[in-house]
Amino acid sequence: MSTSSATNFPATIAIVGCGLVGRCWAIVFGRAKCLVRMYDQDPVARASTTSMLSALLPQLAAKGMLGGLSSDSFMANITVCPSLEECLLGVTHVQECLPEDLDLKKRFFQELSGKIETDTITLASSTSNLTCSSWSQGLPENRRKQCIVAHPINPPHCIPLVEIVPAPWTCPDTTTRVMALMRAVGQVPVLLKKEVIGFAVNRLQYALLEEAFSLVERGIMSPEDVDAVMSDGLGLRWSFLGPFETIDLNAPEGVRQYEMFYGQGMRSVLRDMKATRSDWTDLTIREIDAAMRRKYPVEAISAQRLRRDERLMALSLHKRQQEQQKSKL
Amino acid sequence: MSTSSATNFPATIAIVGCGLVGRCWAIVFGRAKCLVRMYDQDPVARASTTSMLSALLPQLAAKGMLGGLSSDSFMANITVCPSLEECLLGVTHVQECLPEDLDLKKRFFQELSGKIETDTITLASSTSNLTCSSWSQGLPENRRKQCIVAHPINPPHCIPLVEIVPAPWTCPDTTTRVMALMRAVGQVPVLLKKEVIGFAVNRLQYALLEEAFSLVERGIMSPEDVDAVMSDGLGLRWSFLGPFETIDLNAPEGVRQYEMFYGQGMRSVLRDMKATRSDWTDLTIREIDAAMRRKYPVEAISAQRLRRDERLMALSLHKRQQEQQKSKL
Repeated sequence: MSTSSATNFPATIAIVGCGLVGRCWAIVFGRAKCLVRMYDQDPVARASTTSMLSALLPQLAAKGMLGGLSSDSFMANITVCPSLEECLLGVTHVQECLPEDLDLKKRFFQELSGKIETDTITLASSTSNLTCSSWSQGLPENRRKQCIVAHPINPPHCIPLVEIVPAPWTCPDTTTRVMALMRAVGQVPVLLKKEVIGFAVNRLQYALLEEAFSLVERGIMSPEDVDAVMSDGLGLRWSFLGPFETIDLNAPEGVRQYEMFYGQGMRSVLRDMKATRSDWTDLTIREIDAAMRRKYPVEAISAQRLRRDERLMALSLHKRQQEQQKSKL
Repeated sequence: MSTSSATNFPATIAIVGCGLVGRCWAIVFGRAKCLVRMYDQDPVARASTTSMLSALLPQLAAKGMLGGLSSDSFMANITVCPSLEECLLGVTHVQECLPEDLDLKKRFFQELSGKIETDTITLASSTSNLTCSSWSQGLPENRRKQCIVAHPINPPHCIPLVEIVPAPWTCPDTTTRVMALMRAVGQVPVLLKKEVIGFAVNRLQYALLEEAFSLVERGIMSPEDVDAVMSDGLGLRWSFLGPFETIDLNAPEGVRQYEMFYGQGMRSVLRDMKATRSDWTDLTIREIDAAMRRKYPVEAISAQRLRRDERLMALSLHKRQQEQQKSKL
């Protein structure tokens, strides 16, 4: 087995499932000059994939998000295939992007397993919540060791983080090669050494959301003000510093001193939070929804999502410029 | 009592305590053309304040963070006073920036209370964890109603959020006027309608840190990877969208539908997190510290903090440009 995918880079990649996540992955791999073979069992989805991708290219090119490729060169890297067999021709990595349905994923990986003839191909799911163990356990020994979760954050062509979550039986070489592939295409892979429910992204997000919800439910703060705490406060530091880096810079001698100064206070706050948890009542959901709808109606959500992606691209460019200025931070 | 500070804007502001927080507040008020009167009981601190502020001005001007003022015009707005009495001359708002010591704050507000002769002046503490009730309870009735917490995020001249936390006896007009003053100087005030330990910023930060710590303590993820989950993932969205806005855009019909789609999964993750809490053991603190020290030594922390502030200023400029492009988001 090859010890690094870097020797075969740019790679040939299969993307199965041509929905939003599949198309975003196609941008990630295609702009890194990989050959991308896409497949969807729905012929309507297959037929619209090329035009849906093409429609995004002018904006991506304008924001510097096409890796310096012209739209034509980018599209030359993308092939939509009429069958799974053809999609798998010559690929070294499969990125599954099907709906979040355990039985569906089990059936797909079973089918895939029968069509794969080499040990070196890596088989990744984009799932945000189904562990690799759960969908790969029934596969033959020599196939399930090639399986892994590679969970992107939506939308992956604007947000580099990818959670890599192997099953206990995933071959270490599979993990190494998928991490290397993700780095080679400009993403930032992080490794979960054990399978946990929610992985890391949603665990961290939900931990914060639980308290955000509680602040509204207890009548302490409006939903708009909770959002501002993040978007005009905490989120500014967190857009380029992690939670540990943030507190490391908040005490003259770093994180150990931070814990000495603030650890006791922090534990008191955490105890109080445990004692004042809420349970996402419908009344509070409605209050939060009403606050969101005051900002824009339901009909405008998809336009707002496009604007979000525009801002993520601009932020990505901004961060790249900042990082070029200084090697540190 | 005047119903709005806007009529008297730019205002005259007293800042008591010339440490880091006091100097940052001086930048916030001074660049908004307020007259700033500063005082510190330590003569050494008083003597160095002007030169410490001056040293920051070239960079602030270069990053567009001086509100269009020249360094000279800015410094003309700043007066360091030899006594508390002189510091209070003609001011409409006092911003206390003393160390986080309850007895010290009690004594200061007692002293302040004896020197204030008007009902219209607002008396705010920059404290991050001492409720307004705790330090104002012993004050005369007609003074404690003028008291409030106005807690900035460090450093306030780069991060606009200010938590406004009144005591039960704080006069509603005090709250209104301090919120208006903060908006007038370009900050983003958010209101806590009840006093809670940790206010909102630290409650939300600690909720996330608790799980971040647990991921390291349980051997699931390295500290560096936990940081990347934020700085290359969640933090990108959160730098311009709050937690509710973020999930609102993650379901076609908004936050109510998000709860329908993902609420059950979220509750399962939260239950698992409750069952797997850790307690910030010394071993794990050392592991996190070791990870931070691999990035930069303790001696480099202050330089890293300057670089953080540079990046916050650049991000602030970037966000302003983005917001000018479209009114929404």
